[in-house]
Amino acid sequence: MTVDTTTRRVTRVEGGRSSTEADHLVVEAPVEFRLGRVPIAVLMRTPGDDESLALGFCLTEGIILAPAEFEGLVPEGEGDRYRIVLSPGVEIDPERFRRNTYTTSSCGVCGKASIDAVRVAARGAPSAGPLVSTGVIGALPAQLRALQPAFDATGAIHAAAIFDAGASVESVAEDVGRHNAVDKAIGELARRRWPLGPAVLCVSGRISFEIVQKAAVAGIPIVVGVSAASSLAVDLAEEMGMSLVGFARGSSMVIYTDPGRITD
Amino acid sequence: MTVDTTTRRVTRVEGGRSSTEADHLVVEAPVEFRLGRVPIAVLMRTPGDDESLALGFCLTEGIILAPAEFEGLVPEGEGDRYRIVLSPGVEIDPERFRRNTYTTSSCGVCGKASIDAVRVAARGAPSAGPLVSTGVIGALPAQLRALQPAFDATGAIHAAAIFDAGASVESVAEDVGRHNAVDKAIGELARRRWPLGPAVLCVSGRISFEIVQKAAVAGIPIVVGVSAASSLAVDLAEEMGMSLVGFARGSSMVIYTDPGRITD
Repeated sequence: MTVDTTTRRVTRVEGGRSSTEADHLVVEAPVEFRLGRVPIAVLMRTPGDDESLALGFCLTEGIILAPAEFEGLVPEGEGDRYRIVLSPGVEIDPERFRRNTYTTSSCGVCGKASIDAVRVAARGAPSAGPLVSTGVIGALPAQLRALQPAFDATGAIHAAAIFDAGASVESVAEDVGRHNAVDKAIGELARRRWPLGPAVLCVSGRISFEIVQKAAVAGIPIVVGVSAASSLAVDLAEEMGMSLVGFARGSSMVIYTDPGRITD
Repeated sequence: MTVDTTTRRVTRVEGGRSSTEADHLVVEAPVEFRLGRVPIAVLMRTPGDDESLALGFCLTEGIILAPAEFEGLVPEGEGDRYRIVLSPGVEIDPERFRRNTYTTSSCGVCGKASIDAVRVAARGAPSAGPLVSTGVIGALPAQLRALQPAFDATGAIHAAAIFDAGASVESVAEDVGRHNAVDKAIGELARRRWPLGPAVLCVSGRISFEIVQKAAVAGIPIVVGVSAASSLAVDLAEEMGMSLVGFARGSSMVIYTDPGRITD
């Protein structure tokens, strides 16, 4: 994982006294992904791991169905603009996804329609396992935090990591955007197996519908966050038979949904 | 301001002991806005103040140029789907904005192009004033926090408020999405004046490019957040001659850019 930070001169005020110093900032910059000549997404992301981001994004947005359909990225022109190269024989009509990024992720204007769309994309419920104890789950946010060099430098960047049932980290990513961090972590691990199967996705912030949606499409049955889940995130987790845990902080947490995967 | 919360049965684990109880969750639900028959945005938002959201969104995304062009919303069909009614004589080609929400907000694949686009949309730099002391700015996040009933209930929802130079609140909104909170606060105040002029936008979280962009288009010269700003947010604030403050916590803060508006 490589994460861009940059330096700016700032005025720091502490207890009313101000001084000028250099401060580390998270880099935020747009990237454009194209299919053929058609732009399918412009994301505000932190540069680095763009290939994992593109692969994860294409998978979790339903643009491709398996990592084998994705061959790689080719830079195009100036700036951060890439053409997605699909594997030989894979044909996708890019107009279906043209500049449609944020609408595809809700797929309708009622939660039910969105949930139906995710169920189709995920093609089957996430696996029954793994069994994970509350002790293991409560420790994941601290493990995630220890994997965040860019947070150490900047004091503010989102992160996502995928852990196996033994709490060993399988992939991790930091990004200015929380959905991007999830896509990067999923994209990195998707090169090794798909669907991701028995594993735990841990995110550094709130758990929105889209975070659960991305985990569902990747086949990850357990999602853990350090803050609250939204109503639609809980509804989706329940319908998909997933386990959803918020406010995970050591020996305290809120278990929103759990079809028998979380043990004492 | 009305903010939806809802209740779910959850398992709360505290110090290893678990109990089942009711928990308040932030409501997250999609809303679709249409121009004529064309969907221009599907947003994952917290229901409530949808008219302010639509007005603020249309203004800050450059879909309309002034609040006078916006007449209101008309519900369409089932679910949260609305048709935007423009004022008599106002004509906009909706295809220009069709499902293009997140691409319009970056407008290119390099930060420079994005900044140029914002400068055009903002039509002139934000006003020279107001002058605001670090004491006033450091107190804004606590004032914002006191205006968040939904945070009290749920423990996690974004908020944005616009204060005048005397630190009196002019508008405030809570939403599951931070950009939505900003659009709601801007939309509410835009009904009373436009551009918003000498005022301070305070947000509950990080300051991304898009937060500064929305403030710039609304003519708000000072943006304050309780967490960090991204590199592109700082670049935009600098180019637009805006004042940008992060990590604002009482007598401590980081002033990223300040063309003379912030006093000791």
